[in-house]
Amino acid sequence: MISVALMGHGVVGSGVAEILTTHKQKLFSSLGEEIYLKRILDLREFPESPLADRFTKDFEDIISDREVRVVIETMGGLNPAYDFTKRCLKEGKSVVTSNKELVARHGAELLAIAKENNANYLFEASVGGGIPILRPINQCLVANEVSEIAGILNGTTNFILTKMINESMPFDEALKLAQDLGYAERNPEADVEGHDACRKICILASLAYGKHIYPDNVHTEGITKIALEDVEYAANWGGVIKLIGKCRRLPDGMMDMVVAPMFVPCTSQLANINDVFNGIMVRGDCTGDVVFYGKGAGMLPTASAVVADVVDCCKHLKARKRLFWVDTQGEECIADYNESKTKMYIRLFADDTTAAYNKAQDILGGITCLERTNAPQCELAFVTNEELTYGTITKAIEKLESLGFKKASAIRIGDL
Amino acid sequence: MISVALMGHGVVGSGVAEILTTHKQKLFSSLGEEIYLKRILDLREFPESPLADRFTKDFEDIISDREVRVVIETMGGLNPAYDFTKRCLKEGKSVVTSNKELVARHGAELLAIAKENNANYLFEASVGGGIPILRPINQCLVANEVSEIAGILNGTTNFILTKMINESMPFDEALKLAQDLGYAERNPEADVEGHDACRKICILASLAYGKHIYPDNVHTEGITKIALEDVEYAANWGGVIKLIGKCRRLPDGMMDMVVAPMFVPCTSQLANINDVFNGIMVRGDCTGDVVFYGKGAGMLPTASAVVADVVDCCKHLKARKRLFWVDTQGEECIADYNESKTKMYIRLFADDTTAAYNKAQDILGGITCLERTNAPQCELAFVTNEELTYGTITKAIEKLESLGFKKASAIRIGDL
Repeated sequence: MISVALMGHGVVGSGVAEILTTHKQKLFSSLGEEIYLKRILDLREFPESPLADRFTKDFEDIISDREVRVVIETMGGLNPAYDFTKRCLKEGKSVVTSNKELVARHGAELLAIAKENNANYLFEASVGGGIPILRPINQCLVANEVSEIAGILNGTTNFILTKMINESMPFDEALKLAQDLGYAERNPEADVEGHDACRKICILASLAYGKHIYPDNVHTEGITKIALEDVEYAANWGGVIKLIGKCRRLPDGMMDMVVAPMFVPCTSQLANINDVFNGIMVRGDCTGDVVFYGKGAGMLPTASAVVADVVDCCKHLKARKRLFWVDTQGEECIADYNESKTKMYIRLFADDTTAAYNKAQDILGGITCLERTNAPQCELAFVTNEELTYGTITKAIEKLESLGFKKASAIRIGDL
Repeated sequence: MISVALMGHGVVGSGVAEILTTHKQKLFSSLGEEIYLKRILDLREFPESPLADRFTKDFEDIISDREVRVVIETMGGLNPAYDFTKRCLKEGKSVVTSNKELVARHGAELLAIAKENNANYLFEASVGGGIPILRPINQCLVANEVSEIAGILNGTTNFILTKMINESMPFDEALKLAQDLGYAERNPEADVEGHDACRKICILASLAYGKHIYPDNVHTEGITKIALEDVEYAANWGGVIKLIGKCRRLPDGMMDMVVAPMFVPCTSQLANINDVFNGIMVRGDCTGDVVFYGKGAGMLPTASAVVADVVDCCKHLKARKRLFWVDTQGEECIADYNESKTKMYIRLFADDTTAAYNKAQDILGGITCLERTNAPQCELAFVTNEELTYGTITKAIEKLESLGFKKASAIRIGDL
């Protein structure tokens, strides 16, 4: 019997407690030992819980219990999760988490502390909810150089975009629906501004490249400026707009990273991922493209990923899993996003669209116009024929605006 | 340094040798030790190989070498792979293979021998080529009861069907193209009759349910009878025809299994998997549907999965991976496929299609007609409104034929 403790009995934490109870036999067959949930830390009271006698409000009850070998952190947020995690690892207890914010911010440090103390720090559930992704990258694709990872990593924004695409629902209305359905928070900023997707692509990039990538250093755009007009133009171009988190290793070893809405061609496996589902494409030099699809959030999917990590920690109580990346604080490892190359979709307003077309053609070196039914006379939409650096495109748009052509939208064309 | 040996320097085997050489550094970082390919068994000579000095024609050179801890079997076929694998495992050497025929036929026995001798027998590459699938099911989804697995498991047939669907190329022509491109063997039976897909769904089912499922016991239909007319009707129904291998656990613990072409609705994640790509859907009680997509065959994708297993064996030289299923010889564990329920698409020829429609409606208890442009007067195509047992449907078709309505096709409607 292996004793474990749970910190945080919220949505994911209560799911973990449920799975440890309902799937006891399955877990026993896999591990060959029983997993005993000895302690649950939460400031709230759960008198109705069948595990009511295991609750505590005092972290000391967990940290000082030598029988507790694995601690599950499903508190979320940076504090006190960061401090508690450090203390557990320093005691040689392995820690499993779904806390993407903490891993994206302090992963390198926590992995180093785990290593020093011969413990494991696992966080499969922090990316893609119930979709197996970190372990496959770390183990199954170990004989590959991963050149690129691109994914739909946030279910809330994918739900909103799906409503905009399939039902022509405007952004504000789709956001409200997502909030009513419980998919989006009342303050939806972390989702719609791309911060959540950014944390996840940073964790994926850190794992694949062995260096900690800090979210603050990654250029991130959300979906709040996407209009139904853009959705229509994307359809006529032959694709859909998706919020993509992407990282690519450049020949000089630097990382080309961005989180932004992109036009995704219908032929891409990422184009058909709808509603709250996530999909992650991993490009290996041997495997080619491999795509993982499933529910990126939710109580039981996320909790089941946490429990799989708990089983793995229990199997490796005396051994360390080789999941590691080094810190990079103060080190330049992300390429300047202004130097990153992309094709671009641009929508403009112009009194004279022919003049705007000619000028855009001139400045951007070749463009292809897009059409939509009932477009106003003053609207011009096109994609650039060639990949240009983001800096060049920004300057070109500034130039066009200085000539009186007003930008309505600019969205990357995803090379996916 | 850990010494390994390779048996079979064909397509996959030479890919393994290549990856062990080209990815030496990546593998070293992951494992913390060097993997040394000490011996290569092949009856042919490879004087130009940079590893020419490692070749041997004598299995004894491998089995008697105590330094060799892991043996890679990429010979294919049952003999002598079966015998060699048994002897290696009995010596306590771990074995890694891509040989789906051997695993599907003798997996339970070989896993038992591995267990007895504290060795590992791993075969990630036997299903889905470079797609991580066995390890995710066994490890990442360990906190799930897997209720169903369904997949496009054979790239050759998927290529042929894609040509039929997207280019209206007849079966024979698409098969010839697949042969010319090297995707299909000159004797294509194992692919087009569904035997290859059957072996793979048997391995997946065995792993997920812990019991060996023998391919001979699984009802298997190929794609040789699919006509372009059926492809057209499927499109008008709102889907595509795919060769699906499927297993589902019934409430009584029996397995409902089939390999057959099916109508797959366009909304399914399996509908958009084209060309030689594979896709596998795993339905867990906690995760919901998870889908894995990628190249299901090819030298480097398959070899990279083999090498990932080699790394895993090297990490667990003294420990056993918990990958296991028990033998079931003589035990009934697959439900009678005549009792398996499905909706069905049926295409008939009849002099009087109205009479045929009325009779089919009568016998099958509700049908919905499908249409296609330029259908001959004598053609009637429909899908049943309700799920019926396969036995009921077979008898209904016999009855219709006895009335002079000739069956042209009957294809399952996939519940995917």
